[in-house]
Amino acid sequence: MTRNDTICALATAQGGALSVIRISGNDAVEIAERIFTPRGGTALSKRKSHTAVFGDVKDRRGSLLDEVVLTLMRAPHSYTGEDTVEISCHASSYITRELLINIIENGARQAEPGEFTMRAFLNGKMDLSRAEAVADVIASDSRASHRLAMNQLKGGFSNRLSQLRDKLLHLTSLMELELDFSEEDVSFADRSELQSLSREIEQVISHLVDSFAVGNAVKNGIPVAIVGETNTGKSTLLNALLNEERAIVSDICGTTRDTIEGSMTLGGVTFRFIDTAGVRRTSDIVEQMGIERTLAQLSKSSIALWVIDPMMEMTTMEEAAKRLLPLCAGKRLALLVNKCDVVDPMTLTRAMQWGASMIKSFGKEINWDDKNVWAISAKLGINIDRLNDFLVSSAAMPDFDSEDVVVTNIRHYEGLKLALEDIKRVLTAIDNGLPGDLVSEELRACVRHLSEIVGEVTNAEVLQSIFENFCIGK
Amino acid sequence: MTRNDTICALATAQGGALSVIRISGNDAVEIAERIFTPRGGTALSKRKSHTAVFGDVKDRRGSLLDEVVLTLMRAPHSYTGEDTVEISCHASSYITRELLINIIENGARQAEPGEFTMRAFLNGKMDLSRAEAVADVIASDSRASHRLAMNQLKGGFSNRLSQLRDKLLHLTSLMELELDFSEEDVSFADRSELQSLSREIEQVISHLVDSFAVGNAVKNGIPVAIVGETNTGKSTLLNALLNEERAIVSDICGTTRDTIEGSMTLGGVTFRFIDTAGVRRTSDIVEQMGIERTLAQLSKSSIALWVIDPMMEMTTMEEAAKRLLPLCAGKRLALLVNKCDVVDPMTLTRAMQWGASMIKSFGKEINWDDKNVWAISAKLGINIDRLNDFLVSSAAMPDFDSEDVVVTNIRHYEGLKLALEDIKRVLTAIDNGLPGDLVSEELRACVRHLSEIVGEVTNAEVLQSIFENFCIGK
Repeated sequence: MTRNDTICALATAQGGALSVIRISGNDAVEIAERIFTPRGGTALSKRKSHTAVFGDVKDRRGSLLDEVVLTLMRAPHSYTGEDTVEISCHASSYITRELLINIIENGARQAEPGEFTMRAFLNGKMDLSRAEAVADVIASDSRASHRLAMNQLKGGFSNRLSQLRDKLLHLTSLMELELDFSEEDVSFADRSELQSLSREIEQVISHLVDSFAVGNAVKNGIPVAIVGETNTGKSTLLNALLNEERAIVSDICGTTRDTIEGSMTLGGVTFRFIDTAGVRRTSDIVEQMGIERTLAQLSKSSIALWVIDPMMEMTTMEEAAKRLLPLCAGKRLALLVNKCDVVDPMTLTRAMQWGASMIKSFGKEINWDDKNVWAISAKLGINIDRLNDFLVSSAAMPDFDSEDVVVTNIRHYEGLKLALEDIKRVLTAIDNGLPGDLVSEELRACVRHLSEIVGEVTNAEVLQSIFENFCIGK
Repeated sequence: MTRNDTICALATAQGGALSVIRISGNDAVEIAERIFTPRGGTALSKRKSHTAVFGDVKDRRGSLLDEVVLTLMRAPHSYTGEDTVEISCHASSYITRELLINIIENGARQAEPGEFTMRAFLNGKMDLSRAEAVADVIASDSRASHRLAMNQLKGGFSNRLSQLRDKLLHLTSLMELELDFSEEDVSFADRSELQSLSREIEQVISHLVDSFAVGNAVKNGIPVAIVGETNTGKSTLLNALLNEERAIVSDICGTTRDTIEGSMTLGGVTFRFIDTAGVRRTSDIVEQMGIERTLAQLSKSSIALWVIDPMMEMTTMEEAAKRLLPLCAGKRLALLVNKCDVVDPMTLTRAMQWGASMIKSFGKEINWDDKNVWAISAKLGINIDRLNDFLVSSAAMPDFDSEDVVVTNIRHYEGLKLALEDIKRVLTAIDNGLPGDLVSEELRACVRHLSEIVGEVTNAEVLQSIFENFCIGK
C-alpha cells in the first residue's frame, strides 16, 4: 500500500450519457493541469476547493479529446481526504479510455478496487466498518438493505461498538486498579459490579451477533421455501409470486427436480423464493437427490410456504407432512391449499382443517398462527395478494426494530463472535473467582476484537481482503 | 415542447461506483433545495455558479437516502443554458430510483431522450448540427469516429456551411440588385461572375456530399468483404483478423452459408469484416441464397479481400473470379493466397500470378496495385500483420485529409443533396439565360436547405426525430 502516489479510475459504469473519471493524490491537480485547459483564464492550481470548471481535455497526442466539466476538491475536504479531481466527460468508450491513458502517462496509476475508499479510511475520513458500508450502500437494491447499509455508513454500528468499548475500558480500568494494588490484597473492583457490567456487555454483543441472521437475510434476501408433495403446484406458485414464467410447469409429477430460485422486492424487502422438488417416496435417484435438497433448503429458509392439493389422498400427503413439518421449527409458516378454482368449498375446508391439524401434531415449534392458512389458485393468482401481505408482515422481524443496529457484514459477525467468547470467559473467570490479571487479559482480548472491526487495530492483509471486493473507482 | 418546466434524468449508466442525476430548468435549484441539505450553513440558493457542495439527500419519506456531492451551474453558464444541478451519488439502483422519484415529486419531470441537448440547442448554446454531434461523440469508439464527431461538435461543419451561406447570400444580393432595376433592363450582375461563383459553391457542396461515404464508413466501420471460392479458408481468415473464434470453421465446403460480421479497430479506424459464403455452382437453394448475399455484401463494401486456395484447380476457381471481380470496381482489393504453410513455393507463386492476371482481365475498374498480393496462412496467422497494414493504409482515404470536414450524419447528407440540386438548377438557369427572379428563387431554396441543417429553420417534428435517438440523460 503506497499512500503517496496518485490514483485514477473510471467511477461510473460504461454507457449512459456522462462518465466520471476520478483522480486522487498529491499530484492530482498538477496532473489535471497538464491535460486540461479551462475556458476562462484562472489556472486550475489557483482555483478554490469545491469549484467546477468547464474546459477541454487533450489526449496523449495533444489533440482535443472532449469538452468536460472538472470539479476540484482539495485535501482534506474530499472523499479520500486527498486532493481530488473529478472529470465529467461524454460517455464514449474511446474518450474514457484515452483520457485514462493520458492521466496515467502524466503520472497517475490505475486505482485498485476500493482504493479510494481505503484511502478515505487510511486518512481518517471514516472508520473501517463505515468504509465497508460504502460497498453495501452501492449494492443495496431494496429499502431494507439500503436502510441497514446507510445506518452503518452513518456510523450507527461504530457508535454502538464505541459505547461497548467504553464500558469494557471502564471495566478494565477497575480491574487494573485492583492489579496495581494487588500486593496489598485489596479488591477495589467490586466483583458483583464487574459481574453485572460484564453480563450487560455480553447481552449487547450477543444481541448484535443474533442480529446477523436478520442482517444477512435483508442484505441477500429473506429465503422463502416453497415445499409440499409432488404436483401440488409449487412451481406455478413461484411463477405467480414472481409474476413471470421462471419455472417450468407441467402436470407430470416430479417436473421440478432441482431447486429453482427467484427474487422479488415486496414492501421494501427482498425475498428469495426457493421452489423445491415435491417430497414423496420415489425410487428415482435424481428425484431422491432433489428431495434431499428440498429438505436442506427448507432448513436454511426463514419462511416456509407449505402447498397442498386438496384433491390428493390425505393419507399419501401425510408422508410428506411428516418429513417437512418438523424442519419448519422456528420458521414462519403459511399453509396454502392450492387449486381453489377447481375444487368445491367443502373439500377445500376439509383440506385446510387437515393441514392445520398436521402442523399442530408434527410442527410443534413452528411460528404458526391459525390465520395463516389460505385457499389459493396459483394458476389464476387468487389470494396471492394475501400471501404477499403475509410475507411482508413476516419480514418485519419484531425482534429488531428500525432504530436497532443490525450486523450485515460477515467480518463484523466473526469479530463479534470472538468478542462474545472473550466476554463469556471474563464472566466464567469472575464467577470462579480467578485473579484479576487473568480477567484483565480476557477483557483486553475482547477490546481488541472490537477494535479490529472499526479498524483501530488492523493490518495490510485484512485491508486487502476487505477492499478487493469493492468495484474499481470506489 | 414545453421549455419552461424542469427536467431530470440519470445521466450515467446503471452500475459502477458513482451515478450522476441531472436536473435542468427554472426550478432546478428550488427543487434541489427541498431534497438536499448541505453540510455547512450556506443555503443552495445563495451559492455561486460552478460550486460543488457535500451534503445529504432525502427520499420522499424524508429519510436520509445518501451522502452526495451536488454541483450547481447557473443559467446561462450550463450545458443547457438553464439553471442546472448535478447530483453525484452512490451508484445503487435503489438510491438512484428513490432520488429520481423524490425529485419528480418535488416538481421536475423525467427528461425525454436528448432533451438536455435539445434545450441547449433551443437556448442557443449550440446549433443543430453541433447538437447532433453530441450523440456521435458519445457513440464514438475509435479514433477516427471520435475525430469526426469532435470536429463536428467544435463547429467545423457549421463553419463550412456558414461560409457557403455567405457566398450564396452574396450571389443572391447580386441577383436581387439586378431585379430591382429590371425595368431598366440593366444587368448589374455579371453573368459570368455569377456562373463561376455558382460553380464554386456547387463544388464545395458536392465535395461535402461525397464525403458522406467516408464519414458513414468511419462512423459505422469500413466494410471489408472476405470473398472467394468455397473452402478457401475465408472464415479462418475472419477469425485470424478478429483474433477470436467468431465463425465456425470446418473442412466441409459451404460451412458458411449466411454472412458473418465482426468489427475490429486498427490504427484508430474501425473495420467491419464480412465473411461470406464461397461462390461456386450449386444446386442447394440455401447455399445459392448465401451466394447472392455474398455478391450483395461485396457491392456494398469499400475493401475486398479475395481469398484463393493454391491447391484448387484454377479452372474451377475461374468461375468464382468471373462473378466476383467485376463487382470489385472502385474498391480497394487484396489478393490473398491462403494455406502458404502447407503449399510449396512454386505452387504459391503460380497462384499469385494467376490471381493477378484474373484481376487484370475481369476487374478493370479495381483500385488495384500489383503489390497487394500476399501468401498467407489464416490458420497460423502468417502475414496477417501485412494485411492489417494494407487495411490501415487503405482506410487513409487520400481524398479526405484530417483537416477536412466530413459529413457523417444522414440528415445532413440529405439536406446537402437537396442543396446540390438547387445550385445545379441555378447553374442551368444561368446557362440558359433565364430571368433573375427564377435564379434567385433557386438560390433561396439552396440557402434554406443549408439553414435547416444548422437548425436556423426548423420545426418540432424534425427536432423530435433528431433527439429521440439520443439516450436519456443527454
